Amino acid sequence: MKKGFASDNNSGVHPAIFKAMEEVNHGHVIGYGNDSYTAKAIEIFREKFGEDTEVFFVFNGTGANVLGLSSITRSFHSIICAETAHIEEDECGAPEKFTGCKLLPTEPVNGKLTPESIQHHLKGFNFEHHSQPRVISVSQATEMGTVYTPAEIRALADLAHQHNMFLHIDGARIANAAVTLNMDFKSFTKDCGVDVLSFGGTKNGMMMGEAVLFFNQELTTETKYLRKQSMQLYSKMRFVGAQFQAYFKDDLWKETASHSNRMAKLLEAEVAKIPGIKITQPVEANGVFARVPQEIIEPLQEHFFFYIWNEKESEVRWMTSFDTTEREIYEFVELIKTLVSG
Amino acid sequence: MKKGFASDNNSGVHPAIFKAMEEVNHGHVIGYGNDSYTAKAIEIFREKFGEDTEVFFVFNGTGANVLGLSSITRSFHSIICAETAHIEEDECGAPEKFTGCKLLPTEPVNGKLTPESIQHHLKGFNFEHHSQPRVISVSQATEMGTVYTPAEIRALADLAHQHNMFLHIDGARIANAAVTLNMDFKSFTKDCGVDVLSFGGTKNGMMMGEAVLFFNQELTTETKYLRKQSMQLYSKMRFVGAQFQAYFKDDLWKETASHSNRMAKLLEAEVAKIPGIKITQPVEANGVFARVPQEIIEPLQEHFFFYIWNEKESEVRWMTSFDTTEREIYEFVELIKTLVSG
Amino acid sequence: MKKGFASDNNSGVHPAIFKAMEEVNHGHVIGYGNDSYTAKAIEIFREKFGEDTEVFFVFNGTGANVLGLSSITRSFHSIICAETAHIEEDECGAPEKFTGCKLLPTEPVNGKLTPESIQHHLKGFNFEHHSQPRVISVSQATEMGTVYTPAEIRALADLAHQHNMFLHIDGARIANAAVTLNMDFKSFTKDCGVDVLSFGGTKNGMMMGEAVLFFNQELTTETKYLRKQSMQLYSKMRFVGAQFQAYFKDDLWKETASHSNRMAKLLEAEVAKIPGIKITQPVEANGVFARVPQEIIEPLQEHFFFYIWNEKESEVRWMTSFDTTEREIYEFVELIKTLVSG
Amino acid sequence: MKKGFASDNNSGVHPAIFKAMEEVNHGHVIGYGNDSYTAKAIEIFREKFGEDTEVFFVFNGTGANVLGLSSITRSFHSIICAETAHIEEDECGAPEKFTGCKLLPTEPVNGKLTPESIQHHLKGFNFEHHSQPRVISVSQATEMGTVYTPAEIRALADLAHQHNMFLHIDGARIANAAVTLNMDFKSFTKDCGVDVLSFGGTKNGMMMGEAVLFFNQELTTETKYLRKQSMQLYSKMRFVGAQFQAYFKDDLWKETASHSNRMAKLLEAEVAKIPGIKITQPVEANGVFARVPQEIIEPLQEHFFFYIWNEKESEVRWMTSFDTTEREIYEFVELIKTLVSG
Repeated sequence: MKKGFASDNNSGVHPAIFKAMEEVNHGHVIGYGNDSYTAKAIEIFREKFGEDTEVFFVFNGTGANVLGLSSITRSFHSIICAETAHIEEDECGAPEKFTGCKLLPTEPVNGKLTPESIQHHLKGFNFEHHSQPRVISVSQATEMGTVYTPAEIRALADLAHQHNMFLHIDGARIANAAVTLNMDFKSFTKDCGVDVLSFGGTKNGMMMGEAVLFFNQELTTETKYLRKQSMQLYSKMRFVGAQFQAYFKDDLWKETASHSNRMAKLLEAEVAKIPGIKITQPVEANGVFARVPQEIIEPLQEHFFFYIWNEKESEVRWMTSFDTTEREIYEFVELIKTLVSG
Repeated sequence: MKKGFASDNNSGVHPAIFKAMEEVNHGHVIGYGNDSYTAKAIEIFREKFGEDTEVFFVFNGTGANVLGLSSITRSFHSIICAETAHIEEDECGAPEKFTGCKLLPTEPVNGKLTPESIQHHLKGFNFEHHSQPRVISVSQATEMGTVYTPAEIRALADLAHQHNMFLHIDGARIANAAVTLNMDFKSFTKDCGVDVLSFGGTKNGMMMGEAVLFFNQELTTETKYLRKQSMQLYSKMRFVGAQFQAYFKDDLWKETASHSNRMAKLLEAEVAKIPGIKITQPVEANGVFARVPQEIIEPLQEHFFFYIWNEKESEVRWMTSFDTTEREIYEFVELIKTLVSG
Repeated sequence: MKKGFASDNNSGVHPAIFKAMEEVNHGHVIGYGNDSYTAKAIEIFREKFGEDTEVFFVFNGTGANVLGLSSITRSFHSIICAETAHIEEDECGAPEKFTGCKLLPTEPVNGKLTPESIQHHLKGFNFEHHSQPRVISVSQATEMGTVYTPAEIRALADLAHQHNMFLHIDGARIANAAVTLNMDFKSFTKDCGVDVLSFGGTKNGMMMGEAVLFFNQELTTETKYLRKQSMQLYSKMRFVGAQFQAYFKDDLWKETASHSNRMAKLLEAEVAKIPGIKITQPVEANGVFARVPQEIIEPLQEHFFFYIWNEKESEVRWMTSFDTTEREIYEFVELIKTLVSG
Repeated sequence: MKKGFASDNNSGVHPAIFKAMEEVNHGHVIGYGNDSYTAKAIEIFREKFGEDTEVFFVFNGTGANVLGLSSITRSFHSIICAETAHIEEDECGAPEKFTGCKLLPTEPVNGKLTPESIQHHLKGFNFEHHSQPRVISVSQATEMGTVYTPAEIRALADLAHQHNMFLHIDGARIANAAVTLNMDFKSFTKDCGVDVLSFGGTKNGMMMGEAVLFFNQELTTETKYLRKQSMQLYSKMRFVGAQFQAYFKDDLWKETASHSNRMAKLLEAEVAKIPGIKITQPVEANGVFARVPQEIIEPLQEHFFFYIWNEKESEVRWMTSFDTTEREIYEFVELIKTLVSG
C-alpha cells in the first residue's frame, strides 16, 4: 500500500530502533522493568530532564495520559483541556473511566488553550457540589499541528499553580514541538513549570512505548500501582528500554521529527499554490490542515489515505511521518492539482 | 545475566517471531488493526476456532482478562475465580477497577476450581442486595502448573450456563496446556463450552500481544469500545498481527510450548531425586513447585533467579521457558544438590 | 432564621406530607420497597404515566439522575447536556464517577438545549476512538428558571431517537414546569418521547425522595441492581411511598408548585419596577435571575440569604418555595429598594 | 401486617425521633448540612467521641461504609473483611464500584475476624502486582449477632497500624454492641484504635441517617467531595440532625437497643427449650440464629416474616427490634412449638 497522510502512526519502526530491539533479544532479564535496559533508558531521561525526574514506561499514548492524570487526581477533580484534545476526543472516555474525573473541554485557538480561555472553569473551589479543578492539560504539539511557545506554557503553568493545580502535557508529538522550538525538551517543559509529561515515542519512529515523566517526586507515590492497575505494565519491558536508548542515541528523535516537520512545511508550501485550497492552521509541526473542494476528497483518498477533520467545512488533515519522502509529497500534490483542475 | 527460572516472561522473543515483525516493517498501513497483517492473523484464529469467533488483540495478559471480563459483565456482577488466579492475585485490582465487579476468590485444589468448590458462591440470584454471579474464570494452564482436562472444563461451563453465567479462561499459558493435553486449542475450549478466552502469546515467545476470543458474537457488541477505553488498542497493530502469524506458522507455538513443558518435566525428574526436596504440585505445564530447605533459597537465587511462592512453607516456583536449555537445567540441579548436601 | 431565596430545598416539609409519614409510622413492613405503601405510590405513578412505566424510588436528585443515566449507558458512552445542567455543574462528578461516561457540556440559550446547539456533538458514531453519544439530558424546569415547551422536548427526543440515543429529563422541578405548561406530567414527557425521567419531590415540599421513571421497560433490566450499588436503595422505603401518596393526593404538588411559581412572578414584577435591576432570564418557573448593583448583594444577603449566580456579571439567583409568602416577597423588595436608593 | 423478625429495619421510627423531626419542620435553613440542627448533632458526636472527631452524615449504611472506605483508600488497595460482612454480601458490590478496591473475604468465627484469620492476606506490600492491603473492616455488632470485645478490637487495630493500614468498623448495630458491652461508644472504638466508624441510626429507631466518624482529621481532606460524588449529601439535612439529637437525648439509643437485645435474649431462652431447635451463634446483640426443622419454616414465615440464612443447613435468622414486644416473642415461640410438635 502506498504511504498516505492519515497519521504518523501508520508508519513502521525506524530501522535503528528495530535493530536496538534485536540487540537486546537474548538471554533472560527480570520482567516488568527491573532490567538494565530499562534502567539505562530511565537514566537517559534523567540526564535530559534532571535527576529528580520520575519515569514510568507504558504501552501507548492513551495509557500515558491516563497514568499521568490518575497520579495527580482524585475522582472528584476536573481536568481542563481543549475541545480538540486527544483526551477529550480520541480516547473513548478512558480518562473519565479510569480517573472518574470530569473533563472540561474548552474552545481552543489554533488548537491551543490560553489563560483567558480557561478562566471561566476556575471556579467552585472548596464548594463540594462542584468538581474541583485540578489539572490543565495541553497537547504539545497540539492536535491542530501548532506549537505552544515556552512563554505560553509558562503562563498556563503559573495559572495552574496559583490555584493549587497541575499542568499536564500530552506530548505524543513532543519531538515535533522540540524541533520547531529548536530547544531541548527540558527547556519548554519542566523549566516552564510543567508537572507531568506524557512523552511520546510511537508517533516518531518507535514500535510502541511512551514515558510518563513526573517533575515532582511527591506525585508518584502511587504511580507504580496505578500503572499495573491500568494494564500498562509491560512484562518484557526491555524492548521499550532498548527503543528509547536508540531513540535518543545521536539524537535520532531529532532527525526523524525534523524530517516529518520539513515534509509538512513542504506540503504546505506546495499546496498553498493550488487555487481552491486553503490552509486553515499554522503549520508548526507535522500536520497540515486544509479546506479543499469536497469533490476531490474521495478520489484523493483512494490513492493516499487521510482523514476528514471537519466534514461540514470540507476540512482535511494530512499528517507527515519520519518516512514520508519528498517524492510522495510531490506525487500527492500533483494528484491534488489534477483533481482540482479536473 | 544467566537465565533463571523466575518466569516465562523473562525470556526474549523467538527469532522466527522477531523476523516476522521485521518483514512487515516497511511502508504505511492503517493503524489500530485495520491492516492486512492483523486481518490475516484474525483469519488464522478463525481457522482454528471457527468462523464465528470474534478476535480482539491487546497488549498484555491483564488487558486481555479485563477486556474479556468487561465485555460480559456489568458492574453489579461477580466473578468466581481461584484464590491463586492471576486476576485475583497479580493484577493489582485491575478487574475490579475497570469492571466494577466483585471477585469471589475460591480455594482451589492443585490450582483448579471444581463445580463443588464454587457451589457456595452460586446464590443470591435476582436478589438486589447481592452481587450477581456472572462469570466463572479459570486459568489454563493454572498458576500452579496444572492443566484442566476437557471434562473438567466442560463441567464448569455447564454449571455456568445452567445459571445464565459465562466461563472465561485466562489462557496466558494456553499453549502449554494444549501440548500437555495433546489437543488442538478448540477442542478443550470452545468445544467444551468456554465463552471467552484470553489467548496468550507473550509467555510463549512473543514480544507482546494477546488475543481475546469470543465464541458468541452477541457478546462483542461493545468490545471494540471497551478495548479503546481500557487503553489496550495498539496503534501499530501490524506488529501483533505479524507475530501471531509467525506463532502459528508450522506450529511454532507447539514447538516452543513443548520445549518449555519438557524442560519442566526434566527439572521435576532430576529434582525429585534430591533428598529434602518435595515437589508440591503435579507438573503438567512449564512450572515446578517444590518445598526446599529454606537455607538454600538465597544462595540458589544468586545464580538462578526465581520467586518464593510461599515463604512460610518454604515453597518455591520454578518456571521454564521456550529458551531454557537442558544444560541450564542440569547446572541448576547440580547447584541444588551441592547446596542441599552443603 | 428568616426565610430567604437561596433554594427551594431550604424549606421544610409540607404539613400534609409530614402527616402522611406519621400515619404509616406503625408496625413492621418489609424493607427496601417491598411494602404496600411503596406499591401504592408506584401505582399512582402508573396511573399518571401509563401502566408500562417502571418506577424506582431513590433518596435524592443526584441519585435519581445517576440511576437513570447508568441504566441506559455503558462506560464508553457520552451524555450531552447544558453547561448549566445540574449533572454538569452541581453533582461533583457523580455521573462520570458512577457511569464512566463523558459529559458533553453545551452552551444553552436561556438554560435550554436545541437540536441545533447539540448537532456538533452528534458525531463519531461507530468510531471506537470516540465516546459514543448515547443520551441527551435536559432539565425541566431548567436551572435558569425556564421551561421547555412540549414541541421543544419532542424535537430533542426525535433527534435522540434518530441516532439511537435516549432523552433523559432531570425533573427536579418538573412540578413547576407542569404548572407553567398547564399540562399533566405525561403530556410533556412520555408523550413527547422522553425515555427516562428523574421525577423530583424534595424541592417541592417533600422531606426526601425522588422517582426515576422509565417509559420503556427494556431499559430497566439492570436498574434494581444499579440502585443498590449506587447506594440509593432506602431500607425504610415506606416513608417515601407515603410522601408520594400525599404529594399526589388532591394534587397537592400542583398547589405547592403553583404557589412557588406565583411567588416568583410576583418577585419579578416587583423587582422589575426598581431602577438598576435587570431580570436576565424569562421567569417561567420558581427562579428569578437578575443583575443587581454589586454593592447591595452583601447587605441584602444578611437579611435574606441567596446565591450569587455569576460574580463577574453581578447576577444573582432568587428561588421561591412552596412556603414563601407574599409578605416575604414584599419585605424583600422593600429592602432592595432601600439598598438601591441608599 | 404482624411484626416479624425479618430485620430491624422493618420497624418504623421511634415516636420521640419522629417528634424531633416535626419540631424542626418550620422556616428555612441552609441546605446540605450548613444548618444549626446539623451543627448541634455534630457537636453531640464530638462530646461523645472527642473534639477531634470529624462527622459526616449520610443517608444509609451502604453509603456510610462506602464513604468511610473511599476516604482512606485508593483504587489499588484491598479491604479485608469477613465473608459475612455487609460490605461483602449485602451491598451489591457498591464498595468495589465506588472505591475500585479489592475486597478480601475471610472466613470468620462467630462472625468475627481475628488477627490470625487475616494473617494470610497481609502480604504483597510494595509489590505492584498485588492489591495493597489497606483496611481491615469489621462489623460491630457482627452480622451473626455477636459482639467484639474491646480487646479483640484493639488487637485488630494494632495489627492494622503495624502495617500502615486502617481499622474500619461497620457500626450499623453499634448501639446493640454498646449495650452488650455496657460501655460508652468511645471506649470500644476510638479508644481501641479504630480509625473510621460507620455509626448507624436507622436500624435502631431512626427514619434514615447514619454518621461516618473519622478519628484522625487528616483522613478527611477529601471526604466532603466524596460524599457529594457518592450521592450521599442530603439537601434537607436538618432532618438527620434533628433525629440524631433525639437519638442521644436521655440516652434514647440505649433504651431502644437494650430493648432489642433483651427481646433477642428472651427469644433465645424460650426457643432453646424447644426440642429440635438449635441456636447456632452466641446471642450477643439483637439477632438469633437457629437451626430449625425445615418443614416449619414456611408455615412459620406465613405468620411472622423472617429470612432463611443458610438454606442447606436449615438455619434461620431472627432479628428483634426496638418495637418488638414480649407478647410477640411469646406468640412466635408458641407457634414454633406447635409447628415442631405438629
